[in-house]
Amino acid sequence: MSLYQASVPQLKKMLNNLDKWLDAAVAHATKKSFEPSVLLVARLAPDQYSLTRQIQACCDGAKFTAARLAGKEAPKHPDTETTLDELRARIRSTLEFLDTITEADFADAKGRMIALPFMPGKVLTAADYLNEMALPNFYFHMTTAYAILRHNGVDVGKIAFIGSLNFRDA
Amino acid sequence: MSLYQASVPQLKKMLNNLDKWLDAAVAHATKKSFEPSVLLVARLAPDQYSLTRQIQACCDGAKFTAARLAGKEAPKHPDTETTLDELRARIRSTLEFLDTITEADFADAKGRMIALPFMPGKVLTAADYLNEMALPNFYFHMTTAYAILRHNGVDVGKIAFIGSLNFRDA
Repeated sequence: MSLYQASVPQLKKMLNNLDKWLDAAVAHATKKSFEPSVLLVARLAPDQYSLTRQIQACCDGAKFTAARLAGKEAPKHPDTETTLDELRARIRSTLEFLDTITEADFADAKGRMIALPFMPGKVLTAADYLNEMALPNFYFHMTTAYAILRHNGVDVGKIAFIGSLNFRDA
Repeated sequence: MSLYQASVPQLKKMLNNLDKWLDAAVAHATKKSFEPSVLLVARLAPDQYSLTRQIQACCDGAKFTAARLAGKEAPKHPDTETTLDELRARIRSTLEFLDTITEADFADAKGRMIALPFMPGKVLTAADYLNEMALPNFYFHMTTAYAILRHNGVDVGKIAFIGSLNFRDA
């Protein structure tokens, strides 16, 4: 299994799933006659990230995973989004960056050592980074974003979380 | 990257993390003078799984991922747990099963086609199963279990979610 296969296509699919959950959030707000932006400051615990920050973290997780494994510079996003439209633009911008990362960019990924800003002087192998840190962290923020929506009554389900699967005939 | 490396060690680590979150849950309940079992029926939305069912789903996710990729039979667990002690025994039982799965059991994993009970007549490649279904589903239930605890004031943080990382000197 390649590091590319285990990361980029799935990160892109999940960000597209997230975008669809936001459609469901808008539909729920419209039905209940409240401003969708009310959901953006919702959080599950007072000392946990709001939905806005969870969505930013999903985008950052995807961006940095792809950039670090490909040995490329990630685009900067200053976390200034305050509206649903701005957050959706952030998701689109992240997807556009991921679209520039090809399997060829991962040719040297296997031997790459990954440094993380919070642990100076230390590195992870690319595989350890992906398995132990990048994927758990990405799914953590994706699931928490989803959970905030679910907790607030938005009509999303497990199938909307997982998204499409590449089934073949048995 | 091997399918084993991308699954079994991480599944085990995360289940051990989950067990530690339950220590924090007991500590919180003791401090606040309530029965820890109160948390087991907590949920984030009325039509989402309770903490009990989330923990069972974490165990099942880990068990079936390892079993399907290794081509082994998973042990049966009838989902009868109603106490924290029983849920911790379920986690231990799952870890004991995972301990029986070795890297050698994954020798043929790459070419294995994975059938899922909810999609008769269809299969996924082993890599697609792991990337698209098994890992997202496992982290979904792990994060939701964590989120239920956080929402109820249990003192767990992101480091307790991620757990130890295999850092090397740069």
